[in-house]
Amino acid sequence: MQQITVDLGSRSYPIFIGEGLLSCRDLWRELIGTSQAMIVTNTTIEPLYLARLMQAMPQGNVKSFVIPDGESYKTLAVMHDIITQLLKQKFSRDCCLIALGGGVVGDITGFAAACYQRGVRIVQVPTTLLSQVDSSVGGKTAVNHELGKNMIGAFHQPVAVMADIEVLASLPDRELRAGLAEVIKYGIIRDSNFFAWLESNIAKLLSRDSSCLAYAIERSCINKAEVVAEDELEDGVRAILNLGHTFGHAIETGLNYKVWLHGEAVSMGMLMAADLSNRLGMLGKENVHRIRSLLEHAGLPVVLPDSLDVERLRELMSVDKKVRNGKLFLVLLKGVGHAVVTDEAPEDALKETLKSFLSTSANS
Amino acid sequence: MQQITVDLGSRSYPIFIGEGLLSCRDLWRELIGTSQAMIVTNTTIEPLYLARLMQAMPQGNVKSFVIPDGESYKTLAVMHDIITQLLKQKFSRDCCLIALGGGVVGDITGFAAACYQRGVRIVQVPTTLLSQVDSSVGGKTAVNHELGKNMIGAFHQPVAVMADIEVLASLPDRELRAGLAEVIKYGIIRDSNFFAWLESNIAKLLSRDSSCLAYAIERSCINKAEVVAEDELEDGVRAILNLGHTFGHAIETGLNYKVWLHGEAVSMGMLMAADLSNRLGMLGKENVHRIRSLLEHAGLPVVLPDSLDVERLRELMSVDKKVRNGKLFLVLLKGVGHAVVTDEAPEDALKETLKSFLSTSANS
Repeated sequence: MQQITVDLGSRSYPIFIGEGLLSCRDLWRELIGTSQAMIVTNTTIEPLYLARLMQAMPQGNVKSFVIPDGESYKTLAVMHDIITQLLKQKFSRDCCLIALGGGVVGDITGFAAACYQRGVRIVQVPTTLLSQVDSSVGGKTAVNHELGKNMIGAFHQPVAVMADIEVLASLPDRELRAGLAEVIKYGIIRDSNFFAWLESNIAKLLSRDSSCLAYAIERSCINKAEVVAEDELEDGVRAILNLGHTFGHAIETGLNYKVWLHGEAVSMGMLMAADLSNRLGMLGKENVHRIRSLLEHAGLPVVLPDSLDVERLRELMSVDKKVRNGKLFLVLLKGVGHAVVTDEAPEDALKETLKSFLSTSANS
Repeated sequence: MQQITVDLGSRSYPIFIGEGLLSCRDLWRELIGTSQAMIVTNTTIEPLYLARLMQAMPQGNVKSFVIPDGESYKTLAVMHDIITQLLKQKFSRDCCLIALGGGVVGDITGFAAACYQRGVRIVQVPTTLLSQVDSSVGGKTAVNHELGKNMIGAFHQPVAVMADIEVLASLPDRELRAGLAEVIKYGIIRDSNFFAWLESNIAKLLSRDSSCLAYAIERSCINKAEVVAEDELEDGVRAILNLGHTFGHAIETGLNYKVWLHGEAVSMGMLMAADLSNRLGMLGKENVHRIRSLLEHAGLPVVLPDSLDVERLRELMSVDKKVRNGKLFLVLLKGVGHAVVTDEAPEDALKETLKSFLSTSANS
């Protein structure tokens, strides 16, 4: 078992990475003790892992609540349902929530924990590669609004993250690939050695080689923990973690969160960011090619669906959280392993980038 | 104009107390600058003060949004409506909300500011005595849930509080009295000199003597600012600010937030806390009498409505945020000016207290 610390002073917490953590009674006894605890999970994960986790829990007041599966349920209404359960069970301010699931379960349960009685503890138990390397770490919680993704939320750090590699066995291939998009992101934004390692090991990762997966998760979490420790509330450097996300969120919203997985939209967005960086003379063609090639080898999409158009995408990008004083802040690239945040991307070049991926699609 | 600072390190902020602050262009220019700003108010306050405040705003992107008046609208649904407006107007993370109204407007707008894009700035402009001396200061924000008051919320400090004494002129007498309940609270919990001053000046306060009101607001805010600076997140001493609130919230919930004002329920609750303290031998009869007498002179209720009963009230108290590890934490009194928090109030004595106020009601 690996342990990485997210260093945030009095709010520091451990990320545990290993096989069989879901069943590790000792760890759970230490984390939960005799507190009231509620495991929140979804209809897909419940039959797979809820019983296993329940069995590892200390004796006492442990409940569970199952929400529907899918990004379209990451709403204020479902968050309200979680709060209703907590109130019905008379959970007090010293209770602990446990989010067992992917990014949606983690985000919505994290937000419920942030708001219930103005804040209670939460342990994140991510069950997808994507949530293990990204959303479970760093305290960002949120639900979606009809007019924008993650627009209602809070910064609320967990008390621990448990990344159990064993549960990845049940992950569909498509979700594994979507998770690799965020893994690749860390290489692109700040870790060129890791990017090179990924170029050499992408096939092993796709075949779920467990020591390769463990290493990829560890490197990803170390990168994320370092960035979060430096800038918890995203006033500065943390923004680089959003590489591809402003494009990606616009794509997801444009598709009503129904066609593409988050990691797929981020993959597309990262390639758009690389393309735009190249148009602005910041990034060489060969690096755009390396990025495209790794994403393609990971089985991730590199063209946009036909149903989108330039104006709609640009409109959706303008309500992104990365807009400040009317200016759109974008994460762009000066190299593989070197991301920068800028509000100076010319509107023309941005639209050219959007257009180029749409025309590719139209021609394909 | 008085200025009090709430001392919270990098989150410190000023409380301005004075006449005509709503119209003070210089102050607003300093606070808002060229930011996108949205004034949230309710249907009662809108015709009275919205135009005045709008006129004082710096030129630029200032919008307003009017919500229905009343505690029954302090819901997640109305908070969602505020967020919808912000998104429709394309407000970015560096925008500023302005809560113009009483406690409900302040709490719900504060919570919207806490959650919109994971947190934006807010200026509190309280228009009731109660919100000027209590809810606008200290960063507690929340909405109600059907099963309990303020159960969904966040700690989110404002960037400034503007307590304009002029606006109290339009406050109905009943709301003025309800506000005095929270003013009296500060005397009871930690400021016996102020309590004695209130005993001498209660008639002047009821007749809206403006220098008396200014002094009462100033003393209240100083007391609140000191407690909040000591314990922002209510891990300790801040709990004494809840004197009467555990009883009061149960009463309000029991009456569906429709019969009594918050301050009236708190008045009743403070008297119950004094009564219980006396039953436990902590507080002399003469002090219970002083408290009852001042509340009566302030025109506040000292008996419960008939529609409530002991079991229902006790049940409602058990979902209060002041419950920890299954134990009910209550603020009790060791003297006028000396509050303590305890989880040791015997169930019997608690029920005797509840019963005594109900029987008084039945006999009246």
